[in-house]
Amino acid sequence: MFAVIMAGGKGARFWPRSREKMPKHLLDILGEQTIIQETVERIRPLVPAERTLIVTGQSHAAELMRQLPEIPAENILIEPVGRNTAPCIGLAALHIQRRAGDAVMLVLPSDHRIGDEDGFRRVLKAAAQAADSEDCLVTIGIRPTGPETGYGYLEQGEPFAAIGEDDLFRVRSIREKPPREEAERFLAQGGFLWNSGMFAWKASTILQSIGRHLPELERGLAKIREAIGTDREADVLGRIYRELPSVSIDYGVMEKARDVLIVPGSFGWSDLGSWDALWEISRKDGRDNAVRGSFIGIDAARSLVHSPGKLVALVGVEDLLVVETDDALLICRRGHSQDVKKVVETLEKEGREEYL
Amino acid sequence: MFAVIMAGGKGARFWPRSREKMPKHLLDILGEQTIIQETVERIRPLVPAERTLIVTGQSHAAELMRQLPEIPAENILIEPVGRNTAPCIGLAALHIQRRAGDAVMLVLPSDHRIGDEDGFRRVLKAAAQAADSEDCLVTIGIRPTGPETGYGYLEQGEPFAAIGEDDLFRVRSIREKPPREEAERFLAQGGFLWNSGMFAWKASTILQSIGRHLPELERGLAKIREAIGTDREADVLGRIYRELPSVSIDYGVMEKARDVLIVPGSFGWSDLGSWDALWEISRKDGRDNAVRGSFIGIDAARSLVHSPGKLVALVGVEDLLVVETDDALLICRRGHSQDVKKVVETLEKEGREEYL
Repeated sequence: MFAVIMAGGKGARFWPRSREKMPKHLLDILGEQTIIQETVERIRPLVPAERTLIVTGQSHAAELMRQLPEIPAENILIEPVGRNTAPCIGLAALHIQRRAGDAVMLVLPSDHRIGDEDGFRRVLKAAAQAADSEDCLVTIGIRPTGPETGYGYLEQGEPFAAIGEDDLFRVRSIREKPPREEAERFLAQGGFLWNSGMFAWKASTILQSIGRHLPELERGLAKIREAIGTDREADVLGRIYRELPSVSIDYGVMEKARDVLIVPGSFGWSDLGSWDALWEISRKDGRDNAVRGSFIGIDAARSLVHSPGKLVALVGVEDLLVVETDDALLICRRGHSQDVKKVVETLEKEGREEYL
Repeated sequence: MFAVIMAGGKGARFWPRSREKMPKHLLDILGEQTIIQETVERIRPLVPAERTLIVTGQSHAAELMRQLPEIPAENILIEPVGRNTAPCIGLAALHIQRRAGDAVMLVLPSDHRIGDEDGFRRVLKAAAQAADSEDCLVTIGIRPTGPETGYGYLEQGEPFAAIGEDDLFRVRSIREKPPREEAERFLAQGGFLWNSGMFAWKASTILQSIGRHLPELERGLAKIREAIGTDREADVLGRIYRELPSVSIDYGVMEKARDVLIVPGSFGWSDLGSWDALWEISRKDGRDNAVRGSFIGIDAARSLVHSPGKLVALVGVEDLLVVETDDALLICRRGHSQDVKKVVETLEKEGREEYL
């Protein structure tokens, strides 16, 4: 079994900590380790470092290797440009087939937070087992804890089989991020799961599905396959990848495929999409302040403070997200962290590259 | 005519910019210049540097001289310990008598903000003229613009004389900082002025008044007078000053003296007592943000941002006081800046000297 970690994200929503050169998964906002270090370590009991592949962009490869010295350099697959998840997964599948003939691959985002690691691994294992024995596309659905509008949803179909402690279901439909009322209806109705963006399938299965639903991508991948391992590899990859359709695996394959199964799981999952999400999952003091760094609160409550190396005093304030770096300070009302991207847009518009 | 600037203050209310080593009057929170530089420059048309005395503590003398190179070193009078305003003024009066026999002295705090400098100098001039011709204690009262509870009040008595464009009044009473209802009554009733802590009198007049109302202070000053200019000066000052009663000129002399006159003035005065006061008097943008430094506001309003050298982004917040230094960050709800001293008290209690 292989693991493929997709580390192409930019993470502007964690500005000012996240920057173009330092996207979310390379940051240590959750604790001692960076998010990708936690991601790799979390699957270690299932997949050793030699079979863990990471797909990333050129500009982050060096920092990624620095953070993950145990991952062999040839396991870092570099996309010449970002082309969304379908080409990324296709490229990884080619490499796995070349190394192992065929194998199950777990496909994981680089930047999620998992509360219950044992539960997470159990679900992954069940998904991999189903992918292997049923020759199908398996997606992992998260049992929702609220009517989130920031996630896509999977509608569960009939039970397919029981695998160990877990059940396997057919997929009835895949839904884009819904408006609030629809999300509430999903929850009330039951049978809907959050789309985690985590998958298990054999390399051969996903490449066949790409061939069926994304023939243009298949043609590009075929050219890349021929070049892998030759001295034309970098050249061909650089030329062909740029021409590949930029499409997500959800939209390009999963929504169209028939042979999709779901393993539902509950393991304290969050896609860690914003400073608000970080406050939600952080350990808090008696006034519900989540603090990283030296802190004095006078009538201060329900705030996130991320300011390593500087004393922060909050006086008479509540519901703030406070994030400080060497060159920038963000103070955002809690619940408004989706607007942090407006700050980044303003900086882009004003050409203030040094803050991007 | 001499000017005596009292620069003994600590200014914990401007933490984290103000520190034990760097009190408010040594900071540039108002603009390009530090507050004491502005204070000295403001009176320059009336009093040259050679006749401007500054009374301060040992630990601030060097920085003060650095900021005010035009003030002769012998004009920096160093108090061995802080003993409130009466001993400070008495010491300055001794030095003035020794240099000039006798002269009018303007007594000014080091850390006020004045909007109308011409108006301010006109009132000072009128006060000095009255102090000279009437041989009395003259205090400057500010026509109130609101029922402030942070200032003491002067109750105006009968008119005494007209001096140029200004009028001179007797004082009926001197009131401590009043509760809100009383301050409102003062304003409704009229005839009450804010006590600015600015005075004019001859050196001989104030020393006589000290003799009458503070005989213990007079005895101490007499010993210091004998030593000034001798090689015993530092020794005697160090020994005697410590024993002087710690008392304000208001409480020790002005409230008891009969020969007190007021010149009322309106010249955009503020005692600049807090970050809230600074926001009030600062120039603001269209959303009422007063900003020093690089700034991006997304739905941000009515806030003060003092963060030289760092980009600050406010998102969805209002009514915040944000002050950043190399080692500390304060975020305080506007209207709560009196609680900043609680932060300083906490730091003292925890023995975190590096932040004091």
